[in-house]
Order: sequence, then C-alpha cells, then structure tokens
Amino acid sequence: MGKKFSSNKNIIKMGHGAGGSLMQGLIHDVILKYLGDQDPAVYPSLKSKNNVPLNALEDGSIIGDIVFTTDGHTVKPLFFPGGDIGSLSVAGTVNDLCVMGAQPLGLSLSLIIEEGFPIDELERIIASVEKECKFAGVPIITGDTKVVEKGGVDGLVINTSGIGKRSPFMDTNIEIVKKFRELDSPWMLDSNLKSGDLIILSGTVGDHGISILSRREGYSFQGDIQSDVRALNHLIENALETGGVVSMKDPTRGGIANALNEMAEKSNAGILVKEDAVPINPGVKSATEMLGLDPLEIGNEGKVIIVAVPEMADKILEAIRKKDEGKDAAIIGEVKGDFQGVLLETVVGGKRYIEPPVGDPIPRIC
Amino acid sequence: MGKKFSSNKNIIKMGHGAGGSLMQGLIHDVILKYLGDQDPAVYPSLKSKNNVPLNALEDGSIIGDIVFTTDGHTVKPLFFPGGDIGSLSVAGTVNDLCVMGAQPLGLSLSLIIEEGFPIDELERIIASVEKECKFAGVPIITGDTKVVEKGGVDGLVINTSGIGKRSPFMDTNIEIVKKFRELDSPWMLDSNLKSGDLIILSGTVGDHGISILSRREGYSFQGDIQSDVRALNHLIENALETGGVVSMKDPTRGGIANALNEMAEKSNAGILVKEDAVPINPGVKSATEMLGLDPLEIGNEGKVIIVAVPEMADKILEAIRKKDEGKDAAIIGEVKGDFQGVLLETVVGGKRYIEPPVGDPIPRIC
Repeated sequence: MGKKFSSNKNIIKMGHGAGGSLMQGLIHDVILKYLGDQDPAVYPSLKSKNNVPLNALEDGSIIGDIVFTTDGHTVKPLFFPGGDIGSLSVAGTVNDLCVMGAQPLGLSLSLIIEEGFPIDELERIIASVEKECKFAGVPIITGDTKVVEKGGVDGLVINTSGIGKRSPFMDTNIEIVKKFRELDSPWMLDSNLKSGDLIILSGTVGDHGISILSRREGYSFQGDIQSDVRALNHLIENALETGGVVSMKDPTRGGIANALNEMAEKSNAGILVKEDAVPINPGVKSATEMLGLDPLEIGNEGKVIIVAVPEMADKILEAIRKKDEGKDAAIIGEVKGDFQGVLLETVVGGKRYIEPPVGDPIPRIC
Repeated sequence: MGKKFSSNKNIIKMGHGAGGSLMQGLIHDVILKYLGDQDPAVYPSLKSKNNVPLNALEDGSIIGDIVFTTDGHTVKPLFFPGGDIGSLSVAGTVNDLCVMGAQPLGLSLSLIIEEGFPIDELERIIASVEKECKFAGVPIITGDTKVVEKGGVDGLVINTSGIGKRSPFMDTNIEIVKKFRELDSPWMLDSNLKSGDLIILSGTVGDHGISILSRREGYSFQGDIQSDVRALNHLIENALETGGVVSMKDPTRGGIANALNEMAEKSNAGILVKEDAVPINPGVKSATEMLGLDPLEIGNEGKVIIVAVPEMADKILEAIRKKDEGKDAAIIGEVKGDFQGVLLETVVGGKRYIEPPVGDPIPRIC
C-alpha cells in the first residue's frame, strides 16, 4: 500500500509483537482503525479535555484523574536469573504508571494457566508477585484465574493492569521545569521533549534481555547476567521530588533504541546519544558482541529514561543514584532541534542513526 | 488436609479454573496465602476504610473512589453463535464493574496472539470489540499487544480490565433501600443479602454456555442457540434508577448455581429458588436434558442477578424489562433466614440443595 511499514499481510508474525515498527503498523492498521477514533458523544467519560486517550499510544492512559495501564506477560522461561514472570508482571505495570507521572494505587493480576502446571511453581510465582508488590508498596487489589487445557497456553501467561493517581511530587516538579522553559502537558508524555533537554538513563542497558536469552538458549556469558527487573516508583519519586523532569519512559521491548525513537518522533525532535556514556555491564557487552546484537535494542525491565531540563539534570542524577536501582545512572544524551530521529555519536567519533528495531532480536522477554 | 475442597495436589486441573469450589480452594491456598493479608503500613493506598480489597473476592475491587476489575478471556472457539471473544471481553468487564454499583469509565485491551493468526480474524474481533464498546458507551482507553510463537497460546487470548466510578444512581438507590431496611455497605456487595429480599434474574439461563458447546462439538440443538453476551450497564442503570437494589452479580462460570451460592455464603443466608420461575429457552432446556447438564450451572454472559427489597422488586422488574436484554427478566426466588445455602423448589414440589459446581460442565466458555 506504499506505506513504510505495512501490517497488511495475511497472518501475524513474531515481529508484530516486538514493540518496533511492525507492531506500530499492526496497531495503526488493525486496532486503531476501529478503536482510535473515539467520539465523546458515544463515550461520555472521554469528555474531559485533559484525558490522554488510547491513540496517544503512551505507556498508560489518563481518564479524569485516573492513570490506567495494562500489560500482558508471556516471558519464556518463566523463571530467569534475577526474576520470574511474577516480579516482571508487577514491575512492568508499576513502571508504566510511574513514567506517566503517576503514583500507583493498585494492580490487577489475571492468570491464564495451562492444565498440568505444577502448583509449586505457581506458588513460587505468586510469592514473587508478593515480594515485588511489597518492594513497590503497591498491592494487587483484584484478580482473575482461568485454566485452559494442554496447549491452550504455554504454561502460564499473566496480565497485570494498574491504576494510579497523579504523583504528589508532580506539581512542584513542573513548577521547577517552568522556571527554565515552557511545558504544555500536566503529564510526563513522550511528546514533551524540547531542544536542550538532557537524557538520563537510570542504569545499564540490556541486562534483562540477555539474562532471558542466556537461560533460554543455555548460553554461558562472562559473569552471571541477572535481569534488572525492578519496580522503579521509588527511584522516580526521587527524580520528581528533585524537580525538572519533563518526560519519562521505560525502555522495555526494543530497548532504548525503540523508546528514544518514540520520544523523538512524538516530540518532533532529534536525540543525540553518546555511545560511551551509555552504561553497560561487561557481560552484556561481550554477549551482544558475540551474538551480533545491538545492546541499545535489547529490552530492559528495571530502567527508565528520564528527560530533564539541563539546569536540573545533575541534581536528578544525584538523587536517583541514591537508590540501588539507580546506582549506574548516567546522562547519555541531549535533545536537539537541528535534526529528527535518534543519532548515536560512536566511541570512535562517527555518527549513525539508531532506527527503531523492525523485529525483536529476542522475542518473549516480557 | 481435612478440608472439603483442597487444591493441595501437585498440578493444576481444569476444575481449578471453573469458578467453582476447586477454584476457591486454589485461590485461598495459593493466591491469598501470599496476597490476601495486605498491611496498609506496607501499602499506603489501602488506608481508606471503605476499600473493598482483594480478599473480599468480589467481581471488582474498590480503592478510594475507583472500582477496578480484570478478566482473562480464553473462550474456545473464538467465534460462536451470537458473539466472539471480542464482544465477550468488553461485556464481561463492563458487567463486572456495573454489578458493584459502578459506572464504567474505560477498559484496557491486552492481546496475546499466536504467530500465524489470521489478521482478518483479528480485525473481525477488534471490530466486535468496537461494536460492544459503542453499545455500552464505554471506550477502550489503554492496550497492549504481544505475539508468541506457535503453541504459545491457542490462537488468541484477551485480557480486559476496567475502571469505574460510583454510579450516579447509587445514592438514591440506597436511600430507597433504607426506607425499608438497613444496608451497611455503600456498594452492591455479595454480602448484602438479608432475609426477605427478592432475587431477580434478568433473563434466560445457559444460552452462552450451550451456544459455545454447540459450536465446539458440532451439536445441533432445537433452534439456533445464540450466546447472550451483552454489556448490561444500561439495564443495570434502569434498575438502580428505580431504586431498592441491595446486591448484584453476573452469573458467568458455574452459572446461577455458583453465583447464588457465593451470595448466600457471603451473606450468611439461605436462598430459595423456584425452578419453574427460572427463565430458560426451550432449545437450552432440551440441550441440557439431552446432555445431562444442569442449566443452573451453565455460564451466562449477558445476565445479572439483582437482589432487591421486596417492596421495589416489581418496579425494578418492570424497569429492566424495558431493555431488550432484560425482556425475559423474572423474580426467581427469595432470601431466607431459616437455612443456609441455595435450595431449589422443583417443579414437582420437592426441594433440593443446589451446590456450587465442583468442576465446570463446559470449560473455556469465557
């Protein structure tokens, strides 16, 4: 049809779920075709003009004063170094709420379990859900359990949805932003970036994806690569309390390559990333080199991209480094007005565009 | 372990997902063991005393002024007479919100799709989601899409979660209840039943389960049995606007046998059901007789049990019959104080207890 990325094929392919451009095509051509144009005359709850609707394709949506998000979890294997599908479900949904500028109130837990699944494994997963909920201070408040026959699902899939309200630190955060520049939205949207903003990454890239890959394929990499899966609400609270944050995003599927491209596109801006500033664990670095993978495209589950006004970036960095989950945080780049997309300044001084990954180098990491 | 229904076996069985007593065992022994005891010191959002928490096992939970619910949908086949997994997902979640006394604000739509799934079928399902959303006037406001390899799921599973606020008709509804008797909870809980209340059922039993079974097994029953899948928010609005409703529940998995038993148990009361008052389509009746199934145990997806003070029951009945989805509504029984459980007065005049089904006569109907 002349489009750059068309989903107009006959069947669903793995790349349709990769978080990259193939998935964007599917979402636009099939899902938003029906659900994207929502008339407030049909849907009275959409009358408030501060809503962030479905077609904004943010990490969460906002209706009235409620932030709402959902995530299906299909990670394989269910248990991996540093976490399992239980901790992943909780952390992923908490993080999706927080990056909007919300304080999470509660989560739902919907289990679809294959007949024959060992109950002791289920129990380990629920215990892990509890542990991550307690770390975050965010409870599971509603749930659902379905069982399907052999082959209905591959072991277990989980959906967690979450609700939140505006973080109490958001008003002062935005006040501080406004000392330095304009900010239109009262929420931390992908579209809020402006030239001059600095890009903070809360820690090393690629740990989650590589931990999954190593467990799944039986690879043994230098060191024991642990997933970074972690709820980031406390770290994000530190950032918002410091003030000056304009946007946040958790770089899951498609890694920071995908997340930064989404932010750049929605903000109609360029992002310059300095390769040598991007934190990476040596084990992840050597694994990606060995496998020919780009670590910037590998998914993370305990990292956040925080975009801040330059005047506050160092203070925010200092504040989030106080948390264990932010100890490797670094300023990795800058928002620019003189180009579009995401440009990487490599260690040797060259420059290349980082494209959003078309498919997923490592499927089913979340 | 000496319990009536123990889930303490090694593996998950189909009955664990049936909505009946086996599932209750699993939920208590495995899930609530970890997630049921929630300390507000750990979870600050639980400090409000009007919350309806996870361990209330209601159709939805309430946190502050937000009603929140979740549902995984694994129906097989995906398309069935009268509906599909798309309409089912929307209706099921809208209904779970409404039976609490909420006005739905928005839904999430989380898709897990098997590689190779036909895109035109996906499109039909999304179109069906849109149609049911428009009927209900409740939008999909956030979503997630995952793709798994062959065998990861059986075609497609959907999770819909939903948020709502207290219905604007609830205050006057409860005022009217209080003309006639006490009511402790500000919400329409399963535990609100008192002796003398009347049980209204909004229509015929078993249509959904039998429509699924007929399509799945290729049975041909008398007439073409259509699923009753339907969002009931408009019907429920009519009931609440009339006033006098004390509790509501949608009799899905395990049918009205399961739903009434849950209400009776949580209310510490008995329910007497008159068999000849229970509406049933002739095709469903003959199908259940032929297959040896109890129609009271068959799941519905467009029916609601409304419990009302006796003084208002006829007016409520009249109000809901004005809706097409309530045209067959009937008063089917009464809450009693002199026994526990659910007692059926049969057509021939005998009485027998209706137990909550242990397993599910028809798995994967929702």
